[in-house]
Amino acid sequence: MPTKKELLSQPIQHIDIKQHNVVPLIDAMQSMAYSSRDAARAASIYDMMLRDTDCGVILCLAGSLISAGLQKVFIDLIRNNMVDAIVSTGANIVDQDFFEALGFNHYIAGDEYKYGAGDADLRELMIDRIYDTFIDEEELRICDETIHQITNSLEHRPYSSREFIREMGAYLVKEGKTPAAGGRDSIILAAYEKNVPIFCPAFSDCSAGFGLVAHQHARQGKPMVSIDSAKDFYEITQLKIANPTTGLLMIGGGVPKNFAQDIVVAADVLGVEASMHKYAIQITVADARDGALSGSTLKEASSWGKVDLTYEQMVFSEATLALPLIAGYAFHKKAHAARKGKQWATILNQVPVTV
Amino acid sequence: MPTKKELLSQPIQHIDIKQHNVVPLIDAMQSMAYSSRDAARAASIYDMMLRDTDCGVILCLAGSLISAGLQKVFIDLIRNNMVDAIVSTGANIVDQDFFEALGFNHYIAGDEYKYGAGDADLRELMIDRIYDTFIDEEELRICDETIHQITNSLEHRPYSSREFIREMGAYLVKEGKTPAAGGRDSIILAAYEKNVPIFCPAFSDCSAGFGLVAHQHARQGKPMVSIDSAKDFYEITQLKIANPTTGLLMIGGGVPKNFAQDIVVAADVLGVEASMHKYAIQITVADARDGALSGSTLKEASSWGKVDLTYEQMVFSEATLALPLIAGYAFHKKAHAARKGKQWATILNQVPVTV
Amino acid sequence: MPTKKELLSQPIQHIDIKQHNVVPLIDAMQSMAYSSRDAARAASIYDMMLRDTDCGVILCLAGSLISAGLQKVFIDLIRNNMVDAIVSTGANIVDQDFFEALGFNHYIAGDEYKYGAGDADLRELMIDRIYDTFIDEEELRICDETIHQITNSLEHRPYSSREFIREMGAYLVKEGKTPAAGGRDSIILAAYEKNVPIFCPAFSDCSAGFGLVAHQHARQGKPMVSIDSAKDFYEITQLKIANPTTGLLMIGGGVPKNFAQDIVVAADVLGVEASMHKYAIQITVADARDGALSGSTLKEASSWGKVDLTYEQMVFSEATLALPLIAGYAFHKKAHAARKGKQWATILNQVPVTV
Amino acid sequence: MPTKKELLSQPIQHIDIKQHNVVPLIDAMQSMAYSSRDAARAASIYDMMLRDTDCGVILCLAGSLISAGLQKVFIDLIRNNMVDAIVSTGANIVDQDFFEALGFNHYIAGDEYKYGAGDADLRELMIDRIYDTFIDEEELRICDETIHQITNSLEHRPYSSREFIREMGAYLVKEGKTPAAGGRDSIILAAYEKNVPIFCPAFSDCSAGFGLVAHQHARQGKPMVSIDSAKDFYEITQLKIANPTTGLLMIGGGVPKNFAQDIVVAADVLGVEASMHKYAIQITVADARDGALSGSTLKEASSWGKVDLTYEQMVFSEATLALPLIAGYAFHKKAHAARKGKQWATILNQVPVTV
Repeated sequence: MPTKKELLSQPIQHIDIKQHNVVPLIDAMQSMAYSSRDAARAASIYDMMLRDTDCGVILCLAGSLISAGLQKVFIDLIRNNMVDAIVSTGANIVDQDFFEALGFNHYIAGDEYKYGAGDADLRELMIDRIYDTFIDEEELRICDETIHQITNSLEHRPYSSREFIREMGAYLVKEGKTPAAGGRDSIILAAYEKNVPIFCPAFSDCSAGFGLVAHQHARQGKPMVSIDSAKDFYEITQLKIANPTTGLLMIGGGVPKNFAQDIVVAADVLGVEASMHKYAIQITVADARDGALSGSTLKEASSWGKVDLTYEQMVFSEATLALPLIAGYAFHKKAHAARKGKQWATILNQVPVTV
Repeated sequence: MPTKKELLSQPIQHIDIKQHNVVPLIDAMQSMAYSSRDAARAASIYDMMLRDTDCGVILCLAGSLISAGLQKVFIDLIRNNMVDAIVSTGANIVDQDFFEALGFNHYIAGDEYKYGAGDADLRELMIDRIYDTFIDEEELRICDETIHQITNSLEHRPYSSREFIREMGAYLVKEGKTPAAGGRDSIILAAYEKNVPIFCPAFSDCSAGFGLVAHQHARQGKPMVSIDSAKDFYEITQLKIANPTTGLLMIGGGVPKNFAQDIVVAADVLGVEASMHKYAIQITVADARDGALSGSTLKEASSWGKVDLTYEQMVFSEATLALPLIAGYAFHKKAHAARKGKQWATILNQVPVTV
Repeated sequence: MPTKKELLSQPIQHIDIKQHNVVPLIDAMQSMAYSSRDAARAASIYDMMLRDTDCGVILCLAGSLISAGLQKVFIDLIRNNMVDAIVSTGANIVDQDFFEALGFNHYIAGDEYKYGAGDADLRELMIDRIYDTFIDEEELRICDETIHQITNSLEHRPYSSREFIREMGAYLVKEGKTPAAGGRDSIILAAYEKNVPIFCPAFSDCSAGFGLVAHQHARQGKPMVSIDSAKDFYEITQLKIANPTTGLLMIGGGVPKNFAQDIVVAADVLGVEASMHKYAIQITVADARDGALSGSTLKEASSWGKVDLTYEQMVFSEATLALPLIAGYAFHKKAHAARKGKQWATILNQVPVTV
Repeated sequence: MPTKKELLSQPIQHIDIKQHNVVPLIDAMQSMAYSSRDAARAASIYDMMLRDTDCGVILCLAGSLISAGLQKVFIDLIRNNMVDAIVSTGANIVDQDFFEALGFNHYIAGDEYKYGAGDADLRELMIDRIYDTFIDEEELRICDETIHQITNSLEHRPYSSREFIREMGAYLVKEGKTPAAGGRDSIILAAYEKNVPIFCPAFSDCSAGFGLVAHQHARQGKPMVSIDSAKDFYEITQLKIANPTTGLLMIGGGVPKNFAQDIVVAADVLGVEASMHKYAIQITVADARDGALSGSTLKEASSWGKVDLTYEQMVFSEATLALPLIAGYAFHKKAHAARKGKQWATILNQVPVTV
């Protein structure tokens, strides 16, 4: 059996879409069929979304994407004003992005581990597996503990996940986990610096949860930090109200997809007639036939009044293949040239803190 | 085009597993292959889980299951002491179960609507579609508004979703939405009466969110109700600590799967060496090959120290086909005969409220 | 490592739909959603197909179904006049059905073999794997060799696969591989006795191919047996012409699905205006989104003029779960009570042999 | 409703991998996860396969690939000595490649047609649909009829599909359906000119079948052309014997995958100890969990002694996305620089015709 060191020797490396001009490739795919044509149409919708400077772009992340080598894609979208808010599962933002921001890596697992043949051995070595990727669980525990420390440093009150993640950004700056200070760039840091709010509506459902549980355990019966998921919903709805034209770039489904779609209805509940999301793209392999939200078509979302039918496109592909093409297309077409970031975090700073 | 009344004329009816003795069928499937054998093995693991009276059974629900005619299955599991805690998406519990508890129905949609051909028309009629099922959006708005009223009636402090859902159960009793008072049975009611805690770790990501947003909007700058997802995680971890032997019956993946698996690690974070989930079943059609959690194998979860390898089974099937067979098997085998409910809600009542 | 004998110790056992009255279960599923409702509708279409005594029923088989424990389902359909012709992959008919007719078994493989962890060991033991099922390759070689002997015994001319498989049925009778003579029942035998023609349009693509190759190798430059796939197509088209009303019960996709659908067009090519298949059911997990025929919807087939839109149903399920329910429903509803077999083999005996 | 002319106005255009240097993109994907890393590994295996000049490369085609814009990829592989034999479904070679060689096109269908909403209308207009692609059925009938004419022109005896397709190539040359004569290039033509044999083991299961049925109908009781699928198997096995080192590049599964894998066993049946396929790649979205061959892993094939475990890679992607990357990588790496075509058609010309 290989040693832990041997197993954790080849780090995942994040693709740099700036290095790959896929515009001619995607242009060629526009006249093909199936996923290639769908990917090309999705790319052109993302391009339109960015050229429509009224449009606020909401990026939704589900699945294990950062561990898969897509971190830099999202960083580049943020730094180039190609995304204005992020709704994500906790794992992507905390266990994976913040984890790498702390200096840790994900590792390539050999093909023979994909289907679980070595999982008992991995358990003994404290190596966690995500399909074909390894994580050092001891490093992950440090990530959990860092969240614990950040939590302990905060005022005792309810926080939206957005507020909490902003504190994580501040932590990275303070601790020198920035490129300027010799550290790495990260989604949290880039979003912090570019005023892009990040929401994890199921925030305790990840490494952050461990830190929070430790905090709350120690504070039982005393004032403590809590995470108010309703506040997340309230805040992101404010964005829809402030910026009526919106577009969704969704990788995977799950809570982020549902949450971001729902803000149209939530605005309506607050008495503001909100337009449906004008643009919507989803990359997923989920099947529609089990009726679950993750694979449900964007047409279905239009029956709910959430997504407009005109510019929507599902792309049936695992994201590591399709996203570099779609995001890279918009980048190299310079769709964002005339675009400024919406600086949405500044709007949210006006939402009163919960007392 | 049909009228709204015509479109909403055939209600979904919930299957009653008590009426279908599938034991001989499942026994026959034990010596076949593929999904039938997997379903048979899952059924036998659920049977074992229930006979192991030390074991606390955690039911995880993702996907649109209640709208699909599975509500009564879950009610029967609760009322027959076959489940001790539930972790669910909000949609199943609020938009669908609570919605039906209020007296509303889901409706059968014709095959021609499945792929979105009529979605523009549905939008105009305020009919929402879930694949092959219709919902009257006007009724759903009443459901949202009921949550709003419940929220307004509560003390202003952070709540776990479990605490909030318990208040929804109390509301049903108070309003006579019970079989005894001529109303319908529901998951929330049965769980309320049987002391089965229900957690929705992403609670604002559903109809409940609309009511909560309305509440918080009206209370900006003043004390308000908030939903603390960290408290959810803390509470369910307490259950793992109080009852070390646990089993998971998971329908779909998503947040419920991750959340319930994670409590093993969370207990460890709190300094209690917790055993992995001893039994685990998941019914899903999600693919493993995109690396996302929903389709990740239970073997993968064992690398994380969350699920034991001995008694785990994935079943590749859409749930409406496989669950009545698996749950019905355990029911008709009387696996629960010697079992008492764990009454876990009583343990949680000892967790202090957040101040 | 276990021995070959240990690995091949638990035979696959074929489910007996006659023992499981699933009518109430399927009736309950008619008012649910997703796959359960689709399965219920498919069952009712199969029921209609059988009650429409003008209708000739064509069963299409792709995937490894016989090895999975479904052999007896198909035998029961044949012996109860519930199917009039079969179009199949070669593997189901030769490698699996004929193989079992010779007295051999398929075996249950442990879950740990499903994803290939033991394949190198299996190779050394001459054990072939189909997902979670084992086959003794030495026994399979006997099956190949038996085909070789049958081929050698035939007149040297082109055969349709249907003619060849009929000779395989005659062989089973001659060699006492029948229940009457203490052997087992099989699809080939039942079809032989009930005059149900079986077509394998890609006949050399299976164990039969090995026997045929051996024959042709020995006969190079001399008259030999050949397998004329065009004759298959000609013959089955004659059935459509002789019996205009037809229904398809398709398990899986592939060549059988395409071939059976195409006979509507082929009849047209021969100058006979043929009606589309009046009824069509397909059970499959194949995805529509790659554009391949196996997962293509039956609606798509209607654009080709092959399948009528009125009574068609796709069922998204692995077949071992759904087929016992669908076939069992029609059987226990006695849909076939008034039905006589079409005895289609007698029509085909009038097609001249190829000279 | 749009007219037929309006519906058939945007032809599918075939991607030209020579125009897109994807080497840096694929190199970047080697250190990512999931499908991107798998695609990168598959690309590197194809690269190795081509550099191993002993290796004969067998390309397997299933699914509707030519209609999807991949025709030129396969033509380029043939013309650049990157493939030595082709095993395909009939649809790709006859209905689609030969069809385009005759001067016809496939057309882009709007997204709204994908799920069957317009199929009844399409039927009336004689437009056939493949997912998101349209075909003029009147043109397809001309293709059928052309096959009929070619068949009528042949000597009356059994043909392998390879022999028949070679005659189709000769027809294209004779009729000036070549680039040199102002026509288009095609797979059949390129293969004819480069001595690359093409096998369609289920040859009658496509447009060719219609022409053959018409021929055989007119010739009933008289000598006729027949298509001997056993001869196909015999011939391709001769290639394995003549050239022991082989690699498979498989797009989709079905008959081509099974057929090409089986030649290892067939060689063994003929008394020649054949090595397993040394290299194997499959691009597919088929699921392994239904046990069918199309989605079965290449590891499973190794248990049958067909595929070596060392250099095999499944890629989970719809082919129009993954194939241009994989084939383009090998092309732009000039993996074929030192490679000459195997000219395998010349070996097969030595197999005696069937008498």
